[in-house]
Amino acid sequence: MSAVSEQSRGRARSGRRPGDSGTREAIRAAARAQFAEQGYDRTSMRSVALQAGVDPTLVSHFFGSKQKLFAEVMQLPFDPSVVLPRILEGDPAAIGTRLATFVLSLLQTPEGHARLTGLVRAAASEDAAAAVVRERVTREILAPLAAGLGSDRPELRGSLAASQVVGMVMARYVVKVEPLASLPPEHVVAVIGPTLQRYLTEPLPF
Amino acid sequence: MSAVSEQSRGRARSGRRPGDSGTREAIRAAARAQFAEQGYDRTSMRSVALQAGVDPTLVSHFFGSKQKLFAEVMQLPFDPSVVLPRILEGDPAAIGTRLATFVLSLLQTPEGHARLTGLVRAAASEDAAAAVVRERVTREILAPLAAGLGSDRPELRGSLAASQVVGMVMARYVVKVEPLASLPPEHVVAVIGPTLQRYLTEPLPF
Repeated sequence: MSAVSEQSRGRARSGRRPGDSGTREAIRAAARAQFAEQGYDRTSMRSVALQAGVDPTLVSHFFGSKQKLFAEVMQLPFDPSVVLPRILEGDPAAIGTRLATFVLSLLQTPEGHARLTGLVRAAASEDAAAAVVRERVTREILAPLAAGLGSDRPELRGSLAASQVVGMVMARYVVKVEPLASLPPEHVVAVIGPTLQRYLTEPLPF
Repeated sequence: MSAVSEQSRGRARSGRRPGDSGTREAIRAAARAQFAEQGYDRTSMRSVALQAGVDPTLVSHFFGSKQKLFAEVMQLPFDPSVVLPRILEGDPAAIGTRLATFVLSLLQTPEGHARLTGLVRAAASEDAAAAVVRERVTREILAPLAAGLGSDRPELRGSLAASQVVGMVMARYVVKVEPLASLPPEHVVAVIGPTLQRYLTEPLPF
């Protein structure tokens, strides 16, 4: 079936005009809300269509698959092109502390907390969502971090740092293991900063 | 409605005898399989009943809620009463390496890999599942680890070590971030062993 006839079908059922940017935006907004609130698994093309008030065929027509829709609306909780230079510049011996401070500050805001835990939860749900998160995080955070790091084996170092950041989000903010969950943010920075520093700049044991 | 009449209803619909331990075991087996294969979110009391070949009311009657059913069948991928003494005994300066070696060996087996990633995925799905995982991991792993550790603030140290272990499982085995995902296990041990050592035994910065 051609795109035009798909659009006509969508129009006939939903009453919206084909290619309407308002329709696309309504679908995006509904998808963003549902992925964040219900997680990847319990969000479907149909549930997004229902909330957006459009025919489900329009969601498939515009976005293709649930995985593609997720990739479309998945937003990093910060702009890496702004944040990474700030972390990479300055004393190289304090890069671990700067990265830890940034992550903890982000998690202390309701918006940053919701987006970052949402990202980790999505990555843990289905392989399709994990692949989207892996691709975006690698391309938009880890690769530029590695490019600016100035250490040997920077990609490995970036992925090691990511493991401690993700683990902190999981243990402290998702599973809420005590006493880590109640530790003041500055103490979390003090204890994971040196780990991130070691992963990012100190000699690797192999 | 009394338990007896609930059981009678179950019997009438499913043809199984009330209190039949075979029925309970069939429900447990179906729940174990579905939580592992589909994750917490996509497993329902109804889907478990269907696979076990029993009436859904029997699942509620025997196990109460999805959260309780999950708690009932959730199995740690090892016996902490066997494993923890092995990690705690021996040279205190090598406890980080022993813990890292144990976790990596477990993850190299198909069974250990499936159970540990399943646990992390469940913990990341719904708050109800996270609460079950938190309670079990705290009671069965972190508390005995803390009790045998001989460091100051052992509970905090245990939860910090847990953050790096969980993060390694997420980054390397669930999201599969490269090059960490392809790193030989002994190199992973060499690089996270010192982190676990620092969290478990070295002076805390606050």
